[in-house]
Amino acid sequence: MSLLVVGSIAFDSVETPTDRRENVIGGSATYFSYAASYFTPVNLVGVVGEDWPDEHTSLLQSRNINTEGLEVKAGEKTFSWKGKYLPNMNDRETLEVNLNVFESFSPVLPENYKETPFVFLANGAPTVQMQVLEQANNPKLVVADTMDLWISIQRKELLALIERIDGLVLNDSEAKLLTGEENLVKAGRAVLDMGAKFCVLKKGEHGAMYFGEEGWYVLPAFPTQNVLDPTGAGDSFAGGMMGYLASVNATDPASIKRALVYGTLVASYNVEDFSLERMKQIERDALEQRFAQYQSMLAIS
Amino acid sequence: MSLLVVGSIAFDSVETPTDRRENVIGGSATYFSYAASYFTPVNLVGVVGEDWPDEHTSLLQSRNINTEGLEVKAGEKTFSWKGKYLPNMNDRETLEVNLNVFESFSPVLPENYKETPFVFLANGAPTVQMQVLEQANNPKLVVADTMDLWISIQRKELLALIERIDGLVLNDSEAKLLTGEENLVKAGRAVLDMGAKFCVLKKGEHGAMYFGEEGWYVLPAFPTQNVLDPTGAGDSFAGGMMGYLASVNATDPASIKRALVYGTLVASYNVEDFSLERMKQIERDALEQRFAQYQSMLAIS
Repeated sequence: MSLLVVGSIAFDSVETPTDRRENVIGGSATYFSYAASYFTPVNLVGVVGEDWPDEHTSLLQSRNINTEGLEVKAGEKTFSWKGKYLPNMNDRETLEVNLNVFESFSPVLPENYKETPFVFLANGAPTVQMQVLEQANNPKLVVADTMDLWISIQRKELLALIERIDGLVLNDSEAKLLTGEENLVKAGRAVLDMGAKFCVLKKGEHGAMYFGEEGWYVLPAFPTQNVLDPTGAGDSFAGGMMGYLASVNATDPASIKRALVYGTLVASYNVEDFSLERMKQIERDALEQRFAQYQSMLAIS
Repeated sequence: MSLLVVGSIAFDSVETPTDRRENVIGGSATYFSYAASYFTPVNLVGVVGEDWPDEHTSLLQSRNINTEGLEVKAGEKTFSWKGKYLPNMNDRETLEVNLNVFESFSPVLPENYKETPFVFLANGAPTVQMQVLEQANNPKLVVADTMDLWISIQRKELLALIERIDGLVLNDSEAKLLTGEENLVKAGRAVLDMGAKFCVLKKGEHGAMYFGEEGWYVLPAFPTQNVLDPTGAGDSFAGGMMGYLASVNATDPASIKRALVYGTLVASYNVEDFSLERMKQIERDALEQRFAQYQSMLAIS
């Protein structure tokens, strides 16, 4: 089955303690799409300026990512972000944000996207996420991401969205902010009480927690020693997860668990280089190899 | 097989965001012994003052913990610690430390402790840990804990100890401090390079990582929503781990993995109440129940 993603497309400038990159391809929808492309075709909706190089679009197209929904705004500039990671490679400072075309992003789904059964609303204003949801025609599974900014300034709109979607994906600090619960198990359950059918809490290098009607569990991250750039880890996690679910056309708990593992593994590759560089070097077989390693790491006899 | 532990015995005063306890039974060797007692008899070495109530000693004895090595110093006071947990229940401030009898702790093993095959050197000065090791007669497995203080002020002595022991257990921030590596996989491997045969990095609510000659893995904590007091989580983890290994008289990788799971589960109970309160309510069957839940949580089909 195909998968729809709506989110940001950006130029990232990233500084880590040992290296840096300027104006590389980034954005939530970009990382998500590439990660999902190991599993399923993707319908991408986003906006860029006229400074967006054609080869970036070609790269996405080469991965079976449909860019019909990629709007190019003449005379305008692409969203750009500049950030710096602290030595722990987990915390980061945002040094510069230029929303540019993303500021007035008002996504319109191409006609042939509207029936896409699997939908991911990447981090963005809940009002914009809702606008996308209104255009989707009876999707089978809708999952949304969010961030602290929206929890603070569009709380009401976010709560309305949560009641309409199936799954919410967010990081641990955001879950605490959203629910007021410091304990992550309580926070995850509180998201279900808000109306989500399931919730995935991302804990960065510490893995992810799942909460659903049938209970909760935690899965660790795949331990890697080559963390060059954590940017896009959460989005590539979500892309792997949704891509797998779309590929098997399933939403049952066992499939979601496998999907979380695939998300974990795509993210584990993604952080091994800047931008999409590491993901560009691998194919599905590399994921299957880590899947087997991960399975055996967690097998307790 | 029996298990020897040498470490602190204390009165703890603990404040959490919602509750507090004054002068309850605490200390690394206390938590360790109780946790290990689900699995195997324990030979305890420690020191207390004359303010130590007999019923605390009786409680330990009732768990098949041999207190022959518990020295009671007349006219002196027991080590006491006072701390306060921040709202995240992971970070804490130490408000008061009175070393008292622990300041001049110079452990002497009773004659019938010297052949104990499994040895745990709880957190303490590396010089004192080494002094214990010198008295142990050809132990089968020696594991030590340490802390930031010793890494800073007795680094040379700690490095000498690491070369002599089998396993080092320490928390993630201590591992970074000891090795200078920010990435935990690199930090764990660096501990092996220092001469330890294996290393266990404790990540608190995020679980634990194992590093050995055969590779490394990570195991998440058991997700619990009833965290009342994290004090002693690391020591009860170590107690469950070493207690299980002693009970099966094994040191092979598969047994160590099961041991880490038991450590994880004992710790998950321990944090559900202050002091030893929650551990006092359970028996081995409760651990087996969580073992099955944990196994199924991590089973990926």
